[in-house]
Amino acid sequence: MPTTLGWTIADWQQAYKEGARPEELLRPLIGQLEEDDPAWIARLSEDGLTKALAELANKLEAAGGELEQLPLYGVPFAAKDNIDALGFNTTAACPAYAYAPEQDAAVIRKLKAAGAILVGKTNLDQFATGLVGTRSPYGAVPNSFNPEIISGGSSSGSASVVARGLVPFALGTDTAGSGRVPAGLNNLVGLKPTKGWFSIDGVVPACKSLDCVSVFGLTVNDAALVADTMGGFEPGDAFSRKVPAALPLDAPAIRRPGPVQRLGIPEAPLFHGDQQAEAAWNTALSQWRQLDTAGVELVPLDFSPLLELAALLYEGPWVAERHAAVEGFMANHAADMNDTVRSIIGNADKFTATDTFKARYRKKELLREIDELLAEVDGLLVPTAPTAPSIEAVNADPVTLNSQLGTYTNFVNLADFCALAVPAGFRDDGLPFGVTLISGAWKDRELQALASQWLNAHPTSLGATDKPRPAEVVTPRQAVPTIKVAVVGAHLSGMPLNTQLTERRARLLEQTTTSPNYRLYALPNTTPPKPGLQRNETNGTDIILEVWEMPASEFGSFVDLIPAPLGIGNVELADGRWVNGFICEGYGLDGARDVTEFGGWRAFIHS
Amino acid sequence: MPTTLGWTIADWQQAYKEGARPEELLRPLIGQLEEDDPAWIARLSEDGLTKALAELANKLEAAGGELEQLPLYGVPFAAKDNIDALGFNTTAACPAYAYAPEQDAAVIRKLKAAGAILVGKTNLDQFATGLVGTRSPYGAVPNSFNPEIISGGSSSGSASVVARGLVPFALGTDTAGSGRVPAGLNNLVGLKPTKGWFSIDGVVPACKSLDCVSVFGLTVNDAALVADTMGGFEPGDAFSRKVPAALPLDAPAIRRPGPVQRLGIPEAPLFHGDQQAEAAWNTALSQWRQLDTAGVELVPLDFSPLLELAALLYEGPWVAERHAAVEGFMANHAADMNDTVRSIIGNADKFTATDTFKARYRKKELLREIDELLAEVDGLLVPTAPTAPSIEAVNADPVTLNSQLGTYTNFVNLADFCALAVPAGFRDDGLPFGVTLISGAWKDRELQALASQWLNAHPTSLGATDKPRPAEVVTPRQAVPTIKVAVVGAHLSGMPLNTQLTERRARLLEQTTTSPNYRLYALPNTTPPKPGLQRNETNGTDIILEVWEMPASEFGSFVDLIPAPLGIGNVELADGRWVNGFICEGYGLDGARDVTEFGGWRAFIHS
Repeated sequence: MPTTLGWTIADWQQAYKEGARPEELLRPLIGQLEEDDPAWIARLSEDGLTKALAELANKLEAAGGELEQLPLYGVPFAAKDNIDALGFNTTAACPAYAYAPEQDAAVIRKLKAAGAILVGKTNLDQFATGLVGTRSPYGAVPNSFNPEIISGGSSSGSASVVARGLVPFALGTDTAGSGRVPAGLNNLVGLKPTKGWFSIDGVVPACKSLDCVSVFGLTVNDAALVADTMGGFEPGDAFSRKVPAALPLDAPAIRRPGPVQRLGIPEAPLFHGDQQAEAAWNTALSQWRQLDTAGVELVPLDFSPLLELAALLYEGPWVAERHAAVEGFMANHAADMNDTVRSIIGNADKFTATDTFKARYRKKELLREIDELLAEVDGLLVPTAPTAPSIEAVNADPVTLNSQLGTYTNFVNLADFCALAVPAGFRDDGLPFGVTLISGAWKDRELQALASQWLNAHPTSLGATDKPRPAEVVTPRQAVPTIKVAVVGAHLSGMPLNTQLTERRARLLEQTTTSPNYRLYALPNTTPPKPGLQRNETNGTDIILEVWEMPASEFGSFVDLIPAPLGIGNVELADGRWVNGFICEGYGLDGARDVTEFGGWRAFIHS
Repeated sequence: MPTTLGWTIADWQQAYKEGARPEELLRPLIGQLEEDDPAWIARLSEDGLTKALAELANKLEAAGGELEQLPLYGVPFAAKDNIDALGFNTTAACPAYAYAPEQDAAVIRKLKAAGAILVGKTNLDQFATGLVGTRSPYGAVPNSFNPEIISGGSSSGSASVVARGLVPFALGTDTAGSGRVPAGLNNLVGLKPTKGWFSIDGVVPACKSLDCVSVFGLTVNDAALVADTMGGFEPGDAFSRKVPAALPLDAPAIRRPGPVQRLGIPEAPLFHGDQQAEAAWNTALSQWRQLDTAGVELVPLDFSPLLELAALLYEGPWVAERHAAVEGFMANHAADMNDTVRSIIGNADKFTATDTFKARYRKKELLREIDELLAEVDGLLVPTAPTAPSIEAVNADPVTLNSQLGTYTNFVNLADFCALAVPAGFRDDGLPFGVTLISGAWKDRELQALASQWLNAHPTSLGATDKPRPAEVVTPRQAVPTIKVAVVGAHLSGMPLNTQLTERRARLLEQTTTSPNYRLYALPNTTPPKPGLQRNETNGTDIILEVWEMPASEFGSFVDLIPAPLGIGNVELADGRWVNGFICEGYGLDGARDVTEFGGWRAFIHS
């Protein structure tokens, strides 16, 4: 066993910071990647490692030797074998389809640029068609907790190698749940990004309009770091999207800027007879309800339109996207394909162009229903997978059990949602149970913040290792740029103009005071009564204020409301920080009553 | 001839304001709508008018007798006969398809609620399939200038009745250009809105994912009033969209907030041999170049990706949307359909679901290319129609000539652009020539502003009447809310921080001064050097400043950049207006040099 077994990215970073050399950590690691491990389709050779290490050394030199410039310096990872990587054939788990790519997929390129070392390509349901991990000529991938149980798919191998601690992270892909179901079944974090955040350039398409590259990690922090490294607009990828500068304020809550705090849950969750999963879900729910103190509220919802949307993906014309991806190959090599996969993709023949447009119309209608259903929640909380079937059971009924697995995943990409699968304890049979947080496009980071709180409150061991879970750092990273503003008067909580903040989805960050360099005046003839804050470095004191935060896109209309002699400038806080805040022109203070002695506007008003 | 012939909406409003009664204007009008006029499929009956007038009287009473509450009080209009309206069968120009709708289409409902009176349903290319206006059992609609020439389609009748001055406006629909080509051929304004601004609820679909209701008017002001009246989100229509609170700032220029000033034009325009059109285009271009003084710049572009997108609509699987719309009818009534239309819609059979997804992928790629091509322009200026064929020529070659007509219209809806067709003089043969302004979604009002400037500079008579064109009121109506800000120092044009304005797509509105109540100080230790403006009502003077305007969504990030002791408050201008502007806290002026005598920051810096 290599010493690196079960290391998180943070552990790898720490080792290098303390002087470890990539060679001495990675050479033993690749020696331990076993040829008969069905999780792998290909492993990095000794020569390949030598070459990769030479490239890494060059990168470090180009970075002036600064490790911080290469956030994934020497960190090993694996990639699902439908993602192009130089030096490996891309098989998509279909040997007859294999080709030698001429360049790295965009995501691989970005990870390598950050110093990561690709140590192998992993097994999958052929052409990423499945949620089971059994539809591969390279073998069914066993669950990392119980080899009789499926690993889940289609990113079966990537989940397995991370869960067993061989690598700290791996890339999967996710069209209908392939980045989430295996995370749930292997006690992992599975990050399914907003569509288009990670480029799909160099990825064998499943349903190109829905495909995402996904990340399996042991921790949220690791997955988030990988996401930040490989996310971003790629002009050459028509499906790549720019992070919008502002999310629409008048959208349903789930598509609006702001934290994810109110979570819709299925009012009648489906477990297809799996009582162990149902019990684990109920336990998780009771624990989530205890997170209430952190501001999380669970709202039971009728999931019917979400389930109908899921069925539309599964039974509708989107299967023709799979056909479009392999049409040429399939025409000549049908016999070389997995029987189940061939049969599924062959269903594309049943759908005409007319059917396709009719299904799109139905999708549009369902999305409207879904937006209305979700108007009062910021996100969803669902079981990641409702069942955890055995490989034998799946082999006996490959389609039905596969379909059941997608109950809570299939609708997500069609609805343009992002999702984050996280561990949520264990079932009585010892298998892991997972839940998935879901929200609207570009709320990825809000999901990460909430998931981190959850894992800190309910830490499970890492993957299938016995390593304890480190604390997640909950950074308030915002997908949407925000601006802080200090208010000292009529905008304070409960005061007459506070709604000008709340209408703009601002939230109170803290109550504190100015630095001891200010005086406060009651401005004459203002309605409602307003104070003017004067900076006075020779004879000032500290004045109570509140710091609020709002989407940057809303701040302008807020500033626009402010009457003379007031304005927005910069105010120094007690701890020396400067934030945007209310200021007052000098002329406005002439003849104004000095109310500094009250220490704050609220005390003066109440006096 | 009714006295109302050629009246604009403004004329109708004026007449009612001066005491005219709807009865006395509308009864003669409907009496003049001739049964054998091929522009009409149905006309309002005497009884229908009596009923409509009674309803109008009720509305006025409910509005407390205030005409201003009913902006279209008693204004007659027509609607293309693929738009449901109570009391009329909807035929879509196919008698066998006709049905009696159970309610008004959403747009009709809104216009009636505003007081408009629907006086008839107009002829069209059957099922809105065509750009010629000849594909109808109700007859080919003749051009309002020359009966041998087509009216253009598919909204042929609506254009004809407006051009001849029978009604001041009419509704069309526009999927591939049906709201623009007939406007161009009949000297009208044709408003093709951003998809989803006007609901398509109650409209017989052509290509449902692309369909728009459109407006034909004699003036931009009229079309804009109708648009404002019938625009808006309809929750029951899955294709309806909300106007976004903010357009993305980092998008290509054409999709970004702000005015439309730089216009891409085809570097090698196609006229399919029509030298009259080519000459008219060249004349129009030279006139547009003279508008340069108003800030318009013409940029020749390679239109290849736009033309390929147009071809994709015309030759690709989108025809299956037409099939999806009439599938059931066509299965039983193929013989009842226009031969050309049946043949076109029948092409849907050629396309599979796989073809459909492949075409969508190509569309995605082309849209990426188009965004890159248009990164430096705010909009496009194109000929509305490159040819003006005769009815006889179209009958002889119904598909090729139709296809040519869509050269500059077909790509617009697929690209999610809005468009405004406007008159642009006359050809040597006396036919009208038109140009179309195009920009990204939700820039409808920016196009209106530019079109109004154009028409004021080059007024033609109204439609096919001899009425002179009234001045368009160019109101700076913004689809995107903007905020004005007065700058006095380093943000002035050409000064070091001016880019903080231009990066946010701000534009200079005016150079003026403050009211004579200010003093200006050079702040010590600022880089770049910055002034502080002090309001001083007892010993002030007027200080030179510039007023800029920027999208409200960007203003917050601008304010966020401003360092202490400066801020944004309110500044009084020479004419007494107050606008947002730079202010300075009192403490910041201690020890600062008084530079009021220079009259402005630029003069001081140059001194």
